[in-house]
Amino acid sequence: MATPIRVIEVKEEILSDNEHLADETRDGLRAKGTTLVNIMGSPGAGKTSLILETIRRLQGRRAIGVIEADIESLVDSERVRSTGTPVVQIRTGGACHVDASMVKLALEAPDLDGRDLVLLKNVGNLVCPAEFDTGATARVVVLSVPEGDDKPLKYPLMFSVSDVLVISKMDYLSLSEFDPSALKRHVLQLNRDITVFEVSCRTGEGLDEWCAWLLTRGVAAHANRS
Amino acid sequence: MATPIRVIEVKEEILSDNEHLADETRDGLRAKGTTLVNIMGSPGAGKTSLILETIRRLQGRRAIGVIEADIESLVDSERVRSTGTPVVQIRTGGACHVDASMVKLALEAPDLDGRDLVLLKNVGNLVCPAEFDTGATARVVVLSVPEGDDKPLKYPLMFSVSDVLVISKMDYLSLSEFDPSALKRHVLQLNRDITVFEVSCRTGEGLDEWCAWLLTRGVAAHANRS
Repeated sequence: MATPIRVIEVKEEILSDNEHLADETRDGLRAKGTTLVNIMGSPGAGKTSLILETIRRLQGRRAIGVIEADIESLVDSERVRSTGTPVVQIRTGGACHVDASMVKLALEAPDLDGRDLVLLKNVGNLVCPAEFDTGATARVVVLSVPEGDDKPLKYPLMFSVSDVLVISKMDYLSLSEFDPSALKRHVLQLNRDITVFEVSCRTGEGLDEWCAWLLTRGVAAHANRS
Repeated sequence: MATPIRVIEVKEEILSDNEHLADETRDGLRAKGTTLVNIMGSPGAGKTSLILETIRRLQGRRAIGVIEADIESLVDSERVRSTGTPVVQIRTGGACHVDASMVKLALEAPDLDGRDLVLLKNVGNLVCPAEFDTGATARVVVLSVPEGDDKPLKYPLMFSVSDVLVISKMDYLSLSEFDPSALKRHVLQLNRDITVFEVSCRTGEGLDEWCAWLLTRGVAAHANRS
């Protein structure tokens, strides 16, 4: 009977330590004018594809770096590296999310020093990453059309804590019963301040709007520095 | 510095308690000739659609029950209930997986008493549910074509512990770079004994084969009883 209570205590302790470290990280990033975007979503939602398309559009306009987190494998890091963008891999072992201590270690890597914009690809998971503040200056959830428009009902925390929802794989819409307006209705009930982009990395739909939003975040961060 | 060590200890204790309870549950199910199938996969992989199509094909041939687990919402339970099949909902609150104690409680519900086949839809998550034995007599991972064929590289545990891989949404194949033979190669490196089905709940592809496999499991469970 005692075990579940003990778990909750430990978890609260961990979450509180984590939040403290995340706040420190965020203060440090703001002082340097670095935007760190925590990109979350299910496995296969298209997080890395979004990162690759973002690099293609913003390379040369911002100094970009990437943190790729996966339980195993370097496949996504290799795709990023081939663009010439510095990338640091977090191999979480079994862990189902990225926490502030992992991001702190990654940001200390010389490759990421002095970057304007760091894109963090979290572990593919619509549950656990929502609970852990990584120190990012913005949180983004990517939900792909094939996953279905009911996901905010089942995974409300993720949609509540995110600044941006990117609806990805819009090119699948014609094959699907997915209703973007139903999705937005569900999401806005949880989070009135969320910004929504509809994108397709295959057709390019919506990617300029998404990148324009990222640039605004960068400017804001630089303005905060002065 | 002490915190992470403490976490690991607690987690091992929990996992060991959980395994003990899962073994007890499985023994009880075998004694009754009940097959309990733990269906796991990412959000939107098509777990509930697979359950609904299975009910459609096996209703009348087996007494079926369903356990639907979600962090929030009853939407999937309502879809199952509309088929006339008994369903018990596990609302996990924040929890990212189902464990043996939750399943034990669900199986005690009168609605599920005397069922031949109980289909457990786990929380949508390709990570955490793989760590927790629920007491099921078979484990199934559902991976949809839009998620990509590289997922076993990034989430190896799920594919290592599963008895069956159901590749779902095969009707999306023409729109995708998904390579079923690459997926199978990755999976078989982790798990030589896994059985693979390629299905589409939209076109019906592969569903008869999947149901035939389920019937075999049922027969085996009944045979064990004698």
